[in-house]
Amino acid sequence: MITLASDFGSPYPAAMRGVLLRRTDARLVDVAHDFPRQDVRAAAFWLREVLPWFPPAVHLAVVDPGVGTDRAALVVRAGEHALVGPDNGLLLPAARRIAAESPASPSPSADETGDDADGGDDPDDAVEVFAYAYDNPDSATFHGRDVFAPAAAEVHEAGVGALETLSAATPAAEFVDLAFPEPTVREDDATGRALAVDGEVLVVDDFGNAITNVPGEVVRGRDAVVVNGERVPVGESFASVDAGERLVTVGSHGSVECDVNRGRGDEAFGLAPGDAVDIELGR
Amino acid sequence: MITLASDFGSPYPAAMRGVLLRRTDARLVDVAHDFPRQDVRAAAFWLREVLPWFPPAVHLAVVDPGVGTDRAALVVRAGEHALVGPDNGLLLPAARRIAAESPASPSPSADETGDDADGGDDPDDAVEVFAYAYDNPDSATFHGRDVFAPAAAEVHEAGVGALETLSAATPAAEFVDLAFPEPTVREDDATGRALAVDGEVLVVDDFGNAITNVPGEVVRGRDAVVVNGERVPVGESFASVDAGERLVTVGSHGSVECDVNRGRGDEAFGLAPGDAVDIELGR
Amino acid sequence: MITLASDFGSPYPAAMRGVLLRRTDARLVDVAHDFPRQDVRAAAFWLREVLPWFPPAVHLAVVDPGVGTDRAALVVRAGEHALVGPDNGLLLPAARRIAAESPASPSPSADETGDDADGGDDPDDAVEVFAYAYDNPDSATFHGRDVFAPAAAEVHEAGVGALETLSAATPAAEFVDLAFPEPTVREDDATGRALAVDGEVLVVDDFGNAITNVPGEVVRGRDAVVVNGERVPVGESFASVDAGERLVTVGSHGSVECDVNRGRGDEAFGLAPGDAVDIELGR
Repeated sequence: MITLASDFGSPYPAAMRGVLLRRTDARLVDVAHDFPRQDVRAAAFWLREVLPWFPPAVHLAVVDPGVGTDRAALVVRAGEHALVGPDNGLLLPAARRIAAESPASPSPSADETGDDADGGDDPDDAVEVFAYAYDNPDSATFHGRDVFAPAAAEVHEAGVGALETLSAATPAAEFVDLAFPEPTVREDDATGRALAVDGEVLVVDDFGNAITNVPGEVVRGRDAVVVNGERVPVGESFASVDAGERLVTVGSHGSVECDVNRGRGDEAFGLAPGDAVDIELGR
Repeated sequence: MITLASDFGSPYPAAMRGVLLRRTDARLVDVAHDFPRQDVRAAAFWLREVLPWFPPAVHLAVVDPGVGTDRAALVVRAGEHALVGPDNGLLLPAARRIAAESPASPSPSADETGDDADGGDDPDDAVEVFAYAYDNPDSATFHGRDVFAPAAAEVHEAGVGALETLSAATPAAEFVDLAFPEPTVREDDATGRALAVDGEVLVVDDFGNAITNVPGEVVRGRDAVVVNGERVPVGESFASVDAGERLVTVGSHGSVECDVNRGRGDEAFGLAPGDAVDIELGR
Repeated sequence: MITLASDFGSPYPAAMRGVLLRRTDARLVDVAHDFPRQDVRAAAFWLREVLPWFPPAVHLAVVDPGVGTDRAALVVRAGEHALVGPDNGLLLPAARRIAAESPASPSPSADETGDDADGGDDPDDAVEVFAYAYDNPDSATFHGRDVFAPAAAEVHEAGVGALETLSAATPAAEFVDLAFPEPTVREDDATGRALAVDGEVLVVDDFGNAITNVPGEVVRGRDAVVVNGERVPVGESFASVDAGERLVTVGSHGSVECDVNRGRGDEAFGLAPGDAVDIELGR
């Protein structure tokens, strides 16, 4: 199985499908081809949320503002999965999430020595990054078709466990990483209790839900919180409030989102990706 | 075979694909994921028009404004097909259409007793509705991934004929139904002849064609009719009129639609879903 | 394998999928269903750019402003591929490109006599056009579902090599052809050297790149050219210039395109399909 994800819109993904199908009989499954254009962070977020739901697969993902420059191509092994794409951070959050959730994740330091300082569950232990050497194609603008799709087909045919046998793949000493911003907690100076969490909108989904980096536990069980100065009810489901009303929920990805029942949260809250979301928790 | 339909846009449908593929090797076929958002009636219309063209399959369909409330999950058997989705009326029009068109539709009252008052072809006889019990997932906002996709996979693996063997499925005594509005016919008081039909726009398609609930027979064979007060030619095909000109056709779904050749009928006629379409037939 | 392409948007392509799947177990692969509406030239361009990347397949393509008129249905054989669609020129550029690139392209005049005036590689020799006879369906507005999908399934099941055995298919003496406009070269009267190329925008892709009919060789290796009166750098990749800056590249299709790094070339250059693009080459 090979999944495909990109910001290519249409019809460029079809050229990748053709290239793959010339090289493999693998089942092809689209993830999405309308990631926010050239927005590596947003795409990395969505890959992290979606790819771990798949059974073992090769995941071809291309959001690549640096196409045609000397940025490397990567193959990342995570459990029984492999991710193929540009060396710009895109693949790492998904790879770590897959490795963390994989029951079969090989974790050599823990398995063999038992002395993993992080307790043996550090997904970094199970994420192996390979550089994939390629010849620059005639055109320097469509590596999805000319570099990454052939690489994904080769990885699929060789098998995720056999990356070491590919002449093009060599363990990468360095690669571009990507981390999502962490929220900060403000505490009561006297008591040390959490008073507020200052977070950020990571992405806005197609429903207009503004998805933040604030963990769901912050709001779960509360009736309401104050978001950027305005009191908003906390609901388990959109229908907790009347149609058109604002609410805060814990989304399907486990983090706080700013929503409107049957409407667009981004518009009602005035929020876009990167905007600050300060959540006051009250007493 | 499992078909997928939703109003999720992108990339949420990919999480459903992953969940399905962890549970089944079935072929997955997308119907659409851009149904008008949370518009159960429009989605029910499109499912009714599209699903009957498929061979026997499990149809996973999620347009679900009530997600996270106590609305039930349904599995509806229609002929050799099964439909899986929320209990909000979404599935019923398609199920009845499939049952009505299915040569193998089991129609016990007719088959066994021969005394079906409706002539033995009542599709309701062949539509069997089951409630599908589920545990509420941690997140109450994505039942497509957490409830309906696993249910569809289970139904597929068990087989449409074996719904009775599923511990989660029990015949539903009550469920939410959905009927499209019926047009009304105005007749000449003296002669009783039909003078006009008052209908309604059910949906507007991607071409801008305003599709009504008025049966095609009303206009078929006529040269022109008066639509909302203005005379419009009736054409067999869009090209019956010049580019940019308005016309009325019998669409591929068998009902009257208000179109423009190479243009958008909704804009030219000033029509949106739910708007009245009064068609005067003349003498 | 059957590929599907259209300007149908959603959800009409799903009806074609259903019709196909009732008739064949072939793998279905979407090319695109959002070609510019009823724009045969743009769709023919994209089919030509995308379909040759596929392994041998039946390609169902429908962009069909003349649906319901007496325009014919065609099956075009090109190498080991077949293309099925309306007789409006849509299929021919892709068929010729496939035939030209096919190592196995049968080219009888060249193979058998060796006297092909064009050198034996004329793709027209390997493109065979058949008219496909069909009964007009009840509805004259959705031949994609009612005519072309059944035809594509029949061609797939018979095999591309067996078109002659289909009772509906007969060699077409006449058909609608489509040629993209050719650029014109302006030369120095004295020296005969090329001074400029007057081309045209064929399509704008989803990134906003304005793709012209000017061959890439015209600009390759130059530092800059003058496009419609303004000097613009020539870059190998988008990242050759700063974000937001304009450039000219040789796109993945081999022709000159007017781009903006991380932006939309069509807007920055003020270009739409059909617009003139005059490229002065300097000395």
